[in-house]
Amino acid sequence: MNTWLTIASDSDFSIHNLPFGIFDPGDGQPRAGMAIGDHIVDLAAAAENGLLGKKRYFKKLFEQPVLNDFIAEGKTVTNGVRRKIQTWLCLPKAPENAAKILVERQNVQMHMPIRVGDYTDFYSSIEHATNVGKMFRPDNPLLPNWRWIPVGYHGRSSSIVVSGTPVRRPYGQILPKDQDTPIFAPSQRLDFELEMAFVIGKNTALGEPVPVERAEEYIFGLLLFNDWSARDIQRWEYVPLGPFLGKNFGSSVSPWIVPLEALKPFRVKGPQQNPAPLDYLKTTGARNYDIELEVGIKPENGTETVVCRSNMRYLYWSMAQQLAHHTSNGCNVQVGDLMASGTISGPDADSFGSMLELSWGGQKPVPLHDGSTRTFLQDGDSVIMRGWARKDEVRVGFGEVVSGILPAR
Amino acid sequence: MNTWLTIASDSDFSIHNLPFGIFDPGDGQPRAGMAIGDHIVDLAAAAENGLLGKKRYFKKLFEQPVLNDFIAEGKTVTNGVRRKIQTWLCLPKAPENAAKILVERQNVQMHMPIRVGDYTDFYSSIEHATNVGKMFRPDNPLLPNWRWIPVGYHGRSSSIVVSGTPVRRPYGQILPKDQDTPIFAPSQRLDFELEMAFVIGKNTALGEPVPVERAEEYIFGLLLFNDWSARDIQRWEYVPLGPFLGKNFGSSVSPWIVPLEALKPFRVKGPQQNPAPLDYLKTTGARNYDIELEVGIKPENGTETVVCRSNMRYLYWSMAQQLAHHTSNGCNVQVGDLMASGTISGPDADSFGSMLELSWGGQKPVPLHDGSTRTFLQDGDSVIMRGWARKDEVRVGFGEVVSGILPAR
Repeated sequence: MNTWLTIASDSDFSIHNLPFGIFDPGDGQPRAGMAIGDHIVDLAAAAENGLLGKKRYFKKLFEQPVLNDFIAEGKTVTNGVRRKIQTWLCLPKAPENAAKILVERQNVQMHMPIRVGDYTDFYSSIEHATNVGKMFRPDNPLLPNWRWIPVGYHGRSSSIVVSGTPVRRPYGQILPKDQDTPIFAPSQRLDFELEMAFVIGKNTALGEPVPVERAEEYIFGLLLFNDWSARDIQRWEYVPLGPFLGKNFGSSVSPWIVPLEALKPFRVKGPQQNPAPLDYLKTTGARNYDIELEVGIKPENGTETVVCRSNMRYLYWSMAQQLAHHTSNGCNVQVGDLMASGTISGPDADSFGSMLELSWGGQKPVPLHDGSTRTFLQDGDSVIMRGWARKDEVRVGFGEVVSGILPAR
Repeated sequence: MNTWLTIASDSDFSIHNLPFGIFDPGDGQPRAGMAIGDHIVDLAAAAENGLLGKKRYFKKLFEQPVLNDFIAEGKTVTNGVRRKIQTWLCLPKAPENAAKILVERQNVQMHMPIRVGDYTDFYSSIEHATNVGKMFRPDNPLLPNWRWIPVGYHGRSSSIVVSGTPVRRPYGQILPKDQDTPIFAPSQRLDFELEMAFVIGKNTALGEPVPVERAEEYIFGLLLFNDWSARDIQRWEYVPLGPFLGKNFGSSVSPWIVPLEALKPFRVKGPQQNPAPLDYLKTTGARNYDIELEVGIKPENGTETVVCRSNMRYLYWSMAQQLAHHTSNGCNVQVGDLMASGTISGPDADSFGSMLELSWGGQKPVPLHDGSTRTFLQDGDSVIMRGWARKDEVRVGFGEVVSGILPAR
């Protein structure tokens, strides 16, 4: 596929990608767009200029400040829009209406692409679960249910923010070492978690499970997800009902939702599952995705150091299994719900997806290019996550999720 | 206060109450109402008939299918509406426009009163936490953090339904006794949890905690809440990240939100807290509410047996403390968020708020009037929860939350 636009060969937003997002070009009216190279296709303008047919229908969908209603129209509609824009971008030469439809990406403000109803966080990397288990329970790192259940828990939707939004170091109850009375203080163990999240694209009715073989019909697309964590708060609060204030002060997502459609070339088999999953979780074919991931830390006024290189293909439980499990009891899902993978750690020490693992609970400081080290994050640090899939000449990327850390109030 | 309407002395919906809900009178257009005796004040009709002033403003708020936008206007507005309707109901004689404004309550269909953004479930009854702890950890029933933290976790918003909606027995992974391989089967330990929930009435910004002394400004009102639980699913899944599919197949709420304003006469001191809470959780004055609660089980085609009598005043952690804790790390809250108390058990064996406790883990069957017994719930059973506050001649009630249990699919 060739487009008349000039696109760098290493651009995340190639003609094969065409992810959806919400942008404000500067007029205070956030609306739907599609990223292409250094530009954005203003989808309402594309509709206005007749690229999509059904002008009023599409304009109404694209002039909204979130993508939920558009996504809810279903994949026939959303994939149809992608193909029509792709065709337009691949005309023999730049069409005359291009200037009315394209916006320069560097000049816009990105917004949360969806209104998130419910947000669920899984725990699907066996390397991550084993690493964390080793630190807390050396004799018994992986709990007995882990290889049977795509373990997950409900998180907080209200505090999910888009890339670029600073995150404030939280206060919380912390139990100082060797003491039995907690203090209320700023977290000293602020951490990121490298995750991917998928966006639900189709409602289900309460009481109706999604069969695992059909689960991907319910997945619209994927995002990068930074599940901020305060390890000291989490450690004291999490028994017996799970993480709460150690997590819900903020989560950050990348602004562009890459449709599952664009990720088809990158499907791969996941790790061998042993024991074999129960029937309702049994899948055939390639259900994982080969998406390279990295995390950088950039100190205030400093340069970035990449501290982690991982890959989404490492996930033990696939997205299809996560969603089938989530709905196996009849729990309903709604368009715009987010389901995150849990920290994606790989087998190697530099592929661990959190500072907790990289610094092994704070025992092994991680060196940065400026000569400083980190066990956990410092005020002023920015955390940058990136993800991309590549096969032959085809590259489909997620852009970045970047967030700076503000000091505690 | 005397009204020209005839209201039974034991009505939950006295002139002192005036709770808000969403009803459909039969025309398929759910809208805002206020319960009074056996009637509903159609609030859009009240606005139309000039009872409230600012006709268009109020009609627009009340013609919506959820109360969120009305609640978001703030307590000056919501309490103002209550007082104006109260005044109208207490005119010396029935006004001529009464027939245009009042609807018979028995003829309507009630709906979810709010669109719930995030839902949080606390664990604030020391009796409940101790009972459950005794069954799972006899030597160590109350975990070390419990007396310091109003422990809570995030639940599922999408599966919260209004009273009258049947609940289907969920399938799930269950580990049979003395085995190490789970099965996927219908839950055999389906349970209710008797809870109260409060509705957030005011947004906060991410990063801004709500001080405990001001927490009640952010609480619009209260509901009855049945937190359905599948104990066998929960038991196998809950480590280390907390309850998930054992809970999220459904939660049921009563249809009428009783404003905090109407509950002022019933404020009482809570239990002595020992150790003293950390500063950010310290409160003065009476922060609990004396609300009597009961739970009945009604077998299919049978009569109801009340199996539990409890009281909201037993809660160790107050709503103010729950909300202050929830936001202490900067987590934001939004109008329509629900925060449930956790099971409200009292000190006596017949005040336990779940079958898990009443039947002591299934060991002690609970007798019903028809001669049958229950350890956990059976298909066809209906669970009925009621709540009311009473002081001298003033009675303010919550009505009921009633749900029948459908067999597994």
